[in-house]
Amino acid sequence: MLTERPEWKALQAHRAAMDNVHMRSLFADPKRFDRFHIEFGGLLLDYSRNRTTDETIKLLLDLAHACKIENWRDRMFAGDRINNSEDRAVLHTALRRPAGDIVMVDGENVMPFIHDTLRKMQSFSKAVRTGMWTGHTGQKIKTVVNIGIGGSDLGPLMVCEALAHLPERMDVRFVSNVDGAHLNLTLRGLDPETTLFIIASKTFTTQETMANAVTARAWLINAMQDTKAVAKHFVALSTNEKAVAEFGVAAENMFPFRDWVGGRYSLWSAIGLSICLAYGFETFRALLSGGHEMDRHFQEEPLERNMPVIMALLGLWYRNFWDAQSYAVLPYAQELHRLPAFLQQLDMESNGKSVDRDGKPLSYPTGPVVFGEPGTNSQHSFMQLIHQGTNFVPCDFIGTLEAPIPVGEHHKLLLANMAAQAQALMQGRTAAEAGGDTRRAFSGNRPSNILLLDRLDARHLGMLIALFEHKVFVQGILWNINSFDQWGVELGKTLAGKILRDIDDGARQDIDSSTKYLIKRFKKPS
Amino acid sequence: MLTERPEWKALQAHRAAMDNVHMRSLFADPKRFDRFHIEFGGLLLDYSRNRTTDETIKLLLDLAHACKIENWRDRMFAGDRINNSEDRAVLHTALRRPAGDIVMVDGENVMPFIHDTLRKMQSFSKAVRTGMWTGHTGQKIKTVVNIGIGGSDLGPLMVCEALAHLPERMDVRFVSNVDGAHLNLTLRGLDPETTLFIIASKTFTTQETMANAVTARAWLINAMQDTKAVAKHFVALSTNEKAVAEFGVAAENMFPFRDWVGGRYSLWSAIGLSICLAYGFETFRALLSGGHEMDRHFQEEPLERNMPVIMALLGLWYRNFWDAQSYAVLPYAQELHRLPAFLQQLDMESNGKSVDRDGKPLSYPTGPVVFGEPGTNSQHSFMQLIHQGTNFVPCDFIGTLEAPIPVGEHHKLLLANMAAQAQALMQGRTAAEAGGDTRRAFSGNRPSNILLLDRLDARHLGMLIALFEHKVFVQGILWNINSFDQWGVELGKTLAGKILRDIDDGARQDIDSSTKYLIKRFKKPS
Repeated sequence: MLTERPEWKALQAHRAAMDNVHMRSLFADPKRFDRFHIEFGGLLLDYSRNRTTDETIKLLLDLAHACKIENWRDRMFAGDRINNSEDRAVLHTALRRPAGDIVMVDGENVMPFIHDTLRKMQSFSKAVRTGMWTGHTGQKIKTVVNIGIGGSDLGPLMVCEALAHLPERMDVRFVSNVDGAHLNLTLRGLDPETTLFIIASKTFTTQETMANAVTARAWLINAMQDTKAVAKHFVALSTNEKAVAEFGVAAENMFPFRDWVGGRYSLWSAIGLSICLAYGFETFRALLSGGHEMDRHFQEEPLERNMPVIMALLGLWYRNFWDAQSYAVLPYAQELHRLPAFLQQLDMESNGKSVDRDGKPLSYPTGPVVFGEPGTNSQHSFMQLIHQGTNFVPCDFIGTLEAPIPVGEHHKLLLANMAAQAQALMQGRTAAEAGGDTRRAFSGNRPSNILLLDRLDARHLGMLIALFEHKVFVQGILWNINSFDQWGVELGKTLAGKILRDIDDGARQDIDSSTKYLIKRFKKPS
Repeated sequence: MLTERPEWKALQAHRAAMDNVHMRSLFADPKRFDRFHIEFGGLLLDYSRNRTTDETIKLLLDLAHACKIENWRDRMFAGDRINNSEDRAVLHTALRRPAGDIVMVDGENVMPFIHDTLRKMQSFSKAVRTGMWTGHTGQKIKTVVNIGIGGSDLGPLMVCEALAHLPERMDVRFVSNVDGAHLNLTLRGLDPETTLFIIASKTFTTQETMANAVTARAWLINAMQDTKAVAKHFVALSTNEKAVAEFGVAAENMFPFRDWVGGRYSLWSAIGLSICLAYGFETFRALLSGGHEMDRHFQEEPLERNMPVIMALLGLWYRNFWDAQSYAVLPYAQELHRLPAFLQQLDMESNGKSVDRDGKPLSYPTGPVVFGEPGTNSQHSFMQLIHQGTNFVPCDFIGTLEAPIPVGEHHKLLLANMAAQAQALMQGRTAAEAGGDTRRAFSGNRPSNILLLDRLDARHLGMLIALFEHKVFVQGILWNINSFDQWGVELGKTLAGKILRDIDDGARQDIDSSTKYLIKRFKKPS
């Protein structure tokens, strides 16, 4: 058990010793930055602003070794069935590997399958973007609407937003919510003859996605007055061939992936088709290659110079030893505005667990709440609480050295603000420094990391995403949980099915008084 | 001191008694819903799914009385200078009052000023929407770009998004981030001749807003080759007449407000001009009247039937007695997708404080971290952690009985899912009910409120926003903090100024090694 390990107890003792150590005093060491940063491939992790000494890092690394991080990592990359509750391999990393590699699953090398699918994505996206692919009435496609939810939405959406500065962007939109307003507002002004739908659902049974897909299909058929139009305006990203065919998508327009790709890790698979359509296949390839670079870093670097490992350990340090129930992601790049939402799913769905890998209840906290908004906006919103509130909220700042779109002095202002926030959180301001006004005093000693990308391109973005994936993976291993299942979504689905029937048929007698009342109200809107 | 009050100690004792009480058993009472809901004006608060008994509510109300909530409330409405650290009245509620009312500030009845400004907003928005107002070259305005940040952005943006289903919407866009990409991407495809900018800044010195305003002005002048064009394409929302005139905005195109309107409460003031332009003045008036209805409810209802008071007390119950460091806002309405970001500012900037009203350090936790995304999307993302994680995260679900845009069965699916999530969080599923599989078990006993609006129109939205404003106010009173200042934004600003100079002039020697390094890198991007 984690908390009984000697390495854990050593951290507990060390935590007590760190209680009154202020980062200001740690920065008395002029070499602190030198010792606490990692840089490779155009990505810098500056983790100097943490409540950590050399001893802290050493003790955390001891824990990582005791938890056999390297062994688990190698098992993941090798295709072992580490998702034990679903008896599946976890191989999103294979999607980022070069064609010549070999990755065996159940006696099959899956790399040819992966690269066949990539070639299919390449030729399809090229055909659509050049106008070789036409709609039912012979017109070029102008708009792509991706219908998916969760991992079939957040990943591609976040990437498409992040690269909005790239030239030759095709109009790609995303519909996820079952709320009819989402699809309706997205389709306004679109011409069915020039609109292509991507239906993204691993199982092709996801309630929201199928409801939206059926409504979108009706919109198309209603305009075209021909059901055959579906084959030219709908493609599917799925593992379920039968359901895809029944929906009306031609077999050659289904882009497959396998059960060893979890939803929240699926943007690298066929689920990334919308990215290929938005920016062209070469951009998607660069994203994959960035992810693969981070994979190799994670596999090859010793733990003490391993970016995802260090970030994971710092997160655990605050979650388990400083009671930080939440942490903030603060991209200083407007185009990364959906990164926090993406990381919410990645992190909270992976590590929001209360039982260990064997289903035994845990006695220690696991994954934190993740939230964030772009800087500098967050400075005019919730940063007040992070600076002066009573919660302990570690932060990850993310910036890019180059401006994606250089505009006057704007980028300099942006970066100066990011550095200043991190500095303010670290050093604070004593009441004496604030002229005796305690309201204008800051405790400081509030930790943050800075991730600095040379630029916001597909390759660096791929590195960044894979970095967080591996960070979350390492934390899952430390906590001894399965980061790759999500049983917590099940109960709500089951109960929603029952409530749906009740809205039609009248509420059961044996349910709670509130739900009973709601069902009655839903039946007959006021 | 709050924690020494007998009412606090009574709650502590009661908390211990509630430790093993499961909401399932509380719902054995078939009248539970009847006793724990409040409904008025087309808005229902269902607070039956909380870890509360009649006794809990009684004890919380005792605390509210002891903290003199009603007295503080009345002082706020009367214009007392309850924002003591800035020596200001707090009168966003006056903005929502009918013209005949009297509200005195420093011997002046401010109601005529408020309604003069409203009339000016009405005639200006009518002129722009009908085309009576034309740009420099005589063309009708087609697009409005609001440049502001924090309260000058989030409120109007959130409202404009929330009402996207309304007909006759004018194209209104929002630029906030100092990241040049934000303005640049927003202006793409726009014609300067048909574009109107609103510069929204209380002080007209906000760094980000002025940087964006200056860049926008250059874009316009560059296209028009005439600085006189500025007067026909820029209006200002501000308290600073001099700076507005210097920028080039004509005096008659400045829409004023006063220092008793805090940024995060300013959407009801001239800052709401973008809402008037987007949907017409009558929609803005309906928003104000909804806010005013909630004000009267808050003023007139006894505490035990007072929606914002009950919500505030439940929040305090979890924050202070159950160590809930965060809470989730989950609108089951896609158009409310920015409500969580708006509430982040409202709540975290107001109550993220560590000193009391007199500047003395507090010994108890104050405001929580607020986060959220629309349902059903959140179900496919972070709800896993809220159902099965180790954090205690109370939730506010928000739904609308009527679909803003009816589309087939979509709305029924949406509402069924919302009710099911709340039910699942409440009742959970025992391991026995899950067939002995602990991974598929849910502890349940996780609290949530449901807010149900008859429909998503401006009036109901106004009620909803004012509800949260007053909830945050009540919590601030309970915690004995000033919810209306934000000294925590100051230090970062000061340090950013220094770092900016350093980027130009070279880093000082007496700063920390990390900031020194960053300044060097920012100077010469790789």
